[in-house]
Amino acid sequence: MNNINYKLYLVTDRKIIGERDFVWAIEQAILGGATLVQLREKDLSTLQFYNVAKDVKELTSKYNIPLIINDRLDIALAVDADGLHIGQDDMPLEIARKLLGEGKIIGLSTSTIEEAKLAQEQGADYIGVGAVFPTTTKNDADAVSLEQLKEIKETVKIPVVAIGGINEENYKLPMNCGIDGVAVISAILGKSNIKAAAEKFV
Amino acid sequence: MNNINYKLYLVTDRKIIGERDFVWAIEQAILGGATLVQLREKDLSTLQFYNVAKDVKELTSKYNIPLIINDRLDIALAVDADGLHIGQDDMPLEIARKLLGEGKIIGLSTSTIEEAKLAQEQGADYIGVGAVFPTTTKNDADAVSLEQLKEIKETVKIPVVAIGGINEENYKLPMNCGIDGVAVISAILGKSNIKAAAEKFV
Repeated sequence: MNNINYKLYLVTDRKIIGERDFVWAIEQAILGGATLVQLREKDLSTLQFYNVAKDVKELTSKYNIPLIINDRLDIALAVDADGLHIGQDDMPLEIARKLLGEGKIIGLSTSTIEEAKLAQEQGADYIGVGAVFPTTTKNDADAVSLEQLKEIKETVKIPVVAIGGINEENYKLPMNCGIDGVAVISAILGKSNIKAAAEKFV
Repeated sequence: MNNINYKLYLVTDRKIIGERDFVWAIEQAILGGATLVQLREKDLSTLQFYNVAKDVKELTSKYNIPLIINDRLDIALAVDADGLHIGQDDMPLEIARKLLGEGKIIGLSTSTIEEAKLAQEQGADYIGVGAVFPTTTKNDADAVSLEQLKEIKETVKIPVVAIGGINEENYKLPMNCGIDGVAVISAILGKSNIKAAAEKFV
């Protein structure tokens, strides 16, 4: 895919969506302005993850929005997702690229300039950088200052998405570092009006 | 792969191997007579699983023994394993076949005649049937009587491997049902002399 819009990068979290319908919640975020969806599931069986991913793929295809799968290359392949997002504890990038092919988006989580440069060298299509603010949804996230974020953006040529504790009040701070988008979880999916919550970022 | 020998089907369990070297433990089982290795990892990160699978693949290739990966198609593809073993909560068989290709082994866990027949219809290369005896390593295993095991073996044409609580004292009971092999975990990997433990089944 070309010309990916990373501006409002939605990362899913089943616990935050709670009792509300999962696909409906993602659709609300898209209607509110989410430009990309990353499906992140850590506690589902492979069959459950596959079924959810298939449903979400149908939704994102309808809105012509890229669907990125977190970690699980098997799910990305199975539903023909638009890409894969890998962390430093996931599949090595070169193996993921070999199995997914050049036509798919591969993003990598990074939290230092060294990791960011390496990701670019290894052929990542974009990087997620964080956590730029304290976060409740990911305990193991390393902290990245706005100065470091700016330095990373100035160092690499690939798109940079900031992640971690970003909400409607603070998102302009990372955006002012010249980055390509912000990844948001709770500040959209954790609100009762998901569509309106997403609109606040647009 | 053709002419797979399912006779002594080793399923790994990191907890049972404990502090001992993982690859060394599997090698001991192979030296004792294990004919096939299934790598089953439920608690590792994708990167850790990939690294372990790569090491075990090197070992099994050396001994010309098939390596089957439990559940994770991404790992199976990444290390070019000989096959994938899927449970009823894992990737649908037809998707796994499409992604792995015809040349790879796909096994399915079944515990009823209906599941066994369906697995054969959908193109499984073999089925694992159990639990034939009470097991400590898998809490959610359904019970399958020896009569049911025999009936399943007489119903399907693909190889049948019994699993669940099988040890050196009881393994002849399922084998006498005409099946193709027994899957063993604790009764080999849980012993101090792994090689000698495997030899008791041969």
